[in-house]
Amino acid sequence: MESTVAIIMGSSSDLPIMEKAESILDELGIFYKKNIFSAHRTPEELSAFIKEVDFNPSYKVIIAGAGMSAALAGVIASHTIKPVIGVPLSGGKYHGFEAVLSLSEMPPGIPVLTVGIDAVKNAALAAASIIALEDKEVAEKISAFRLSQKMKVLADNQALFDQKYM
Amino acid sequence: MESTVAIIMGSSSDLPIMEKAESILDELGIFYKKNIFSAHRTPEELSAFIKEVDFNPSYKVIIAGAGMSAALAGVIASHTIKPVIGVPLSGGKYHGFEAVLSLSEMPPGIPVLTVGIDAVKNAALAAASIIALEDKEVAEKISAFRLSQKMKVLADNQALFDQKYM
Amino acid sequence: MESTVAIIMGSSSDLPIMEKAESILDELGIFYKKNIFSAHRTPEELSAFIKEVDFNPSYKVIIAGAGMSAALAGVIASHTIKPVIGVPLSGGKYHGFEAVLSLSEMPPGIPVLTVGIDAVKNAALAAASIIALEDKEVAEKISAFRLSQKMKVLADNQALFDQKYM
Amino acid sequence: MESTVAIIMGSSSDLPIMEKAESILDELGIFYKKNIFSAHRTPEELSAFIKEVDFNPSYKVIIAGAGMSAALAGVIASHTIKPVIGVPLSGGKYHGFEAVLSLSEMPPGIPVLTVGIDAVKNAALAAASIIALEDKEVAEKISAFRLSQKMKVLADNQALFDQKYM
Amino acid sequence: MESTVAIIMGSSSDLPIMEKAESILDELGIFYKKNIFSAHRTPEELSAFIKEVDFNPSYKVIIAGAGMSAALAGVIASHTIKPVIGVPLSGGKYHGFEAVLSLSEMPPGIPVLTVGIDAVKNAALAAASIIALEDKEVAEKISAFRLSQKMKVLADNQALFDQKYM
Amino acid sequence: MESTVAIIMGSSSDLPIMEKAESILDELGIFYKKNIFSAHRTPEELSAFIKEVDFNPSYKVIIAGAGMSAALAGVIASHTIKPVIGVPLSGGKYHGFEAVLSLSEMPPGIPVLTVGIDAVKNAALAAASIIALEDKEVAEKISAFRLSQKMKVLADNQALFDQKYM
Amino acid sequence: MESTVAIIMGSSSDLPIMEKAESILDELGIFYKKNIFSAHRTPEELSAFIKEVDFNPSYKVIIAGAGMSAALAGVIASHTIKPVIGVPLSGGKYHGFEAVLSLSEMPPGIPVLTVGIDAVKNAALAAASIIALEDKEVAEKISAFRLSQKMKVLADNQALFDQKYM
Amino acid sequence: MESTVAIIMGSSSDLPIMEKAESILDELGIFYKKNIFSAHRTPEELSAFIKEVDFNPSYKVIIAGAGMSAALAGVIASHTIKPVIGVPLSGGKYHGFEAVLSLSEMPPGIPVLTVGIDAVKNAALAAASIIALEDKEVAEKISAFRLSQKMKVLADNQALFDQKYM
Repeated sequence: MESTVAIIMGSSSDLPIMEKAESILDELGIFYKKNIFSAHRTPEELSAFIKEVDFNPSYKVIIAGAGMSAALAGVIASHTIKPVIGVPLSGGKYHGFEAVLSLSEMPPGIPVLTVGIDAVKNAALAAASIIALEDKEVAEKISAFRLSQKMKVLADNQALFDQKYM
Repeated sequence: MESTVAIIMGSSSDLPIMEKAESILDELGIFYKKNIFSAHRTPEELSAFIKEVDFNPSYKVIIAGAGMSAALAGVIASHTIKPVIGVPLSGGKYHGFEAVLSLSEMPPGIPVLTVGIDAVKNAALAAASIIALEDKEVAEKISAFRLSQKMKVLADNQALFDQKYM
Repeated sequence: MESTVAIIMGSSSDLPIMEKAESILDELGIFYKKNIFSAHRTPEELSAFIKEVDFNPSYKVIIAGAGMSAALAGVIASHTIKPVIGVPLSGGKYHGFEAVLSLSEMPPGIPVLTVGIDAVKNAALAAASIIALEDKEVAEKISAFRLSQKMKVLADNQALFDQKYM
Repeated sequence: MESTVAIIMGSSSDLPIMEKAESILDELGIFYKKNIFSAHRTPEELSAFIKEVDFNPSYKVIIAGAGMSAALAGVIASHTIKPVIGVPLSGGKYHGFEAVLSLSEMPPGIPVLTVGIDAVKNAALAAASIIALEDKEVAEKISAFRLSQKMKVLADNQALFDQKYM
Repeated sequence: MESTVAIIMGSSSDLPIMEKAESILDELGIFYKKNIFSAHRTPEELSAFIKEVDFNPSYKVIIAGAGMSAALAGVIASHTIKPVIGVPLSGGKYHGFEAVLSLSEMPPGIPVLTVGIDAVKNAALAAASIIALEDKEVAEKISAFRLSQKMKVLADNQALFDQKYM
Repeated sequence: MESTVAIIMGSSSDLPIMEKAESILDELGIFYKKNIFSAHRTPEELSAFIKEVDFNPSYKVIIAGAGMSAALAGVIASHTIKPVIGVPLSGGKYHGFEAVLSLSEMPPGIPVLTVGIDAVKNAALAAASIIALEDKEVAEKISAFRLSQKMKVLADNQALFDQKYM
Repeated sequence: MESTVAIIMGSSSDLPIMEKAESILDELGIFYKKNIFSAHRTPEELSAFIKEVDFNPSYKVIIAGAGMSAALAGVIASHTIKPVIGVPLSGGKYHGFEAVLSLSEMPPGIPVLTVGIDAVKNAALAAASIIALEDKEVAEKISAFRLSQKMKVLADNQALFDQKYM
Repeated sequence: MESTVAIIMGSSSDLPIMEKAESILDELGIFYKKNIFSAHRTPEELSAFIKEVDFNPSYKVIIAGAGMSAALAGVIASHTIKPVIGVPLSGGKYHGFEAVLSLSEMPPGIPVLTVGIDAVKNAALAAASIIALEDKEVAEKISAFRLSQKMKVLADNQALFDQKYM
């Protein structure tokens, strides 16, 4: 029974952004399932699916795209006690700012964990950090990912130095 | 079968604001029913109640308080085709501004009609204007209300004049 | 005597946005009349036309484009007791945000019902939901429209599933 | 025929702020008349009064309080070609910010000259600067007012110096 | 001695915007002089020029472009008692919004009359409305301009009607 | 080895807010340790402590108060691969809004999971939801907590009904 | 010839805030002189004083309070090539936010170094850091000040620990 | 031992902006060294480098690019008592506005001196103004730079005059 991340978005138009989670999750060796459900257009089907996710122990984290009025992540959180990571999407008239505000106002008792606007990769890494608490292999892969980020910066710095003196 | 307005709020803490609709609706002779349902804490009960409202022809309009992340009005609109008037409430960390933004970003196909922050009385008047389309008595009472507003302004203006010359 | 929606905009430059109401209203079988009147450039002609709309029982709802300082919807509301739906338009220097704020500050007693920025289609659907209270055929068409929205989401979700397993 | 400033506000609740113009206008020896008309509650009476102001050559400038959706100043400007100074008032839910935005979005051709939030005194001084173009006595009084402001700052600076060395 | 408007901007890069005043002023038969002075780069030369404007009775109004930190209009106002109209320019990092805020915070006693972002034409019309107080010909030209605006809207409205029924 | 939540704040002045996590964590039977370290005043001690937390498997989640420039949560995240929940604090000049923006701009690769302004209780519940993935007892306690929230809303709704009919 | 900081504010009402620099500068053994000059009310006297500061080598840094439209710091910078530190003051209608925006829009070539809203103490410390480049004693006092800040945080952390286990 | 400015940025993607400091510093004859260190990806290396800068007396000022959550400048300031000039970068989702807010909220005791968004040239000039306090040659070059700016404006003004009359 593999640890799995549920990725849910409200519309097929969110696919190009939300799919940015995949390269990270693939690199870290984490399973995921993508679904499209709208909080406003398919409320029953969404709630039925979330209850299934809530019940199935292989699902560890839910990543929800939160576009426009950003209701999706909150509605998901109302149907599960599993960690829900909301990603404010920039598609709305205020470029995601409205979703940032909205997600920062979840009612007491129903938290949504928010990352940056369109920051789907960071959402994937945060989901991985949760799975890594019990999965050493994922933890090591995150550490390796962090190290590669660091080496990239140090190499850029070295290049600046070389450019000047060589 | 009297025309009725359903007034729904997410928490008993919204009661003092939401009850400001009552004096207007009483003055205009319009029935109303108040209910407390939370989009995030009682999603099933809310949806069951809205379906009842949607089915019952005596309900003409729904007024929904939209506090914090403002999900309530949108969730209601997703379960009914009746007109939903959302009132952004000032209780959140951004004093209602976040709810104004959030309500202005309802997805295409699921409109919520928004009034001002805490503008429960204007929501009641707008609900009345909808009921007045088929109810002459209500229409006359709205016209009388408008006239009394106008007379108040003209009397204030006259008082300014009198104060100067008398 | 057919139920009719009055669509009013302040300038011919608003036509391309405001005409987005037409496909929805046509699909729902609702009559409409478009007019151009400016609150600031043709105040008398605007008020004369609104009084006509207010008096004529076939007009049920007014949809007003609210560009720049967003005065048009409010001025209309001051001359009628019929429901006025204001659509903040994105043409101004603040991309419609100023109109959202302005419409959210109508004075007590003169409500304007606001939808999202450039959300002319949602304004049309909201107008339809008001007409549907007394017109079963329109109600059925709105329900069919909602169902088609829902089927679209479920089909997109199924396509995602098929793409993975087939 | 004395040069006169018309001071117009939308509600008697604006009186305490708007009356701050009086001490300045009295000090500068400029006549003024205060009136209360609401753009939304008394549109006809407002337009009748503005036409009178527009026609009467003793009126030189109009100062209009612009509270909430700030429509009053714009509606006034639509009925006169005389200079209209709008004062955004802080009474609304956004503390006057919405009025600042709204006044900064008057349509091309119908300008409103805006001062700061609640800056009624600056509106009065600006009105005086217009009247002073043809009235030497007022010009001299404005210069004297400016000088007294300057002497106040220099005296404060001197007091700081004295406090240290005496 | 012709009534003249002084148009001042802080940089030659503001010329394309500021020159939009010219067609209006030409149409209304009003003289103007354009100058470039920076509040921060040429403070002495600016103040010398403004004192000249202040002293010369043919100058009636100053229109000042207010870009970036918007200091120019305020510095001008500090050196003259003539009416100063500030135009917030959109060139800065906040697209003119910072200039709108800044101009709305002039200190008590030193007013700047503000129009919309880049609204140079409205600044020109407002300057004309001041000159028109003593110049009948200009007043008539403004009225004609207003009428042409109105006829344009009514023609657009008629065109909409014709398009439907003819 | 008990699952433990590390609660870190930048100053003792954040204690009254941050301690609101305790009642929730106590109710859910989750251990926690509070620490005060400043990102700017004690950078070395902070980094030493976080490395300890990162290494110690009993720590599952870090809750970091993010006041003013909100650097603390990000600096913590840079030293650990464990999940970091940032709580924007309202103590700054922009009442927490600046921290919301700042946390929503973490660089790619170093996520911080954000909750609402001062929403320490929601941070605690989110931390609990992570621990609950492997701890059935905590999961049951969260479910019980959710149920009590729901019963509270339903009781409030019933009280409204009773008040009307009894 | 002692290194001196010039502290300039636009009005005596800024004294209570601006004087917060004194305890820091006294503690670090740095001389300072306070002056009141208004950019708009005393432009000549301000410019005369700044030229004096610019010429006098004992003045190393200027700290300028920037209230309302925040012109003071920029006008000062236009008359000197010495470092100018601007402190946005919270007295205006937007609580200092307008001054933050305005100071962040100084024209190319005339920089103002900005600190936080009302952050007079940080301005004093930054001025000290400039003086410390050539004054070892001041450098040591800043280091001691930093150390005392750090010890305060560590003591608070220890107190938390003691409170739990003792 | 030449006075040197340390230029630090968080990513090689900031190079095109940050390198705009070079032409100014070259023109003023000031040495500089560019480095890339990330506050979140290379915290140890960054702190090691800053301590070196802090210790080396040839470094007089640090210019730090502050992109996204703007932590870099603050983290640098926490490791040195030398003046730190932060440049908010426009690369983030809020176009640098978030960095402006964040930098304006540095904790008491750890100042960062902020310039405008992407205002790298102004940061370089401000650094030069600090070095000029002890370096007459640099002071003269800044004065010459200021003069050339002024002559440019006066020439533009003259060109406008010539264009009209010649």
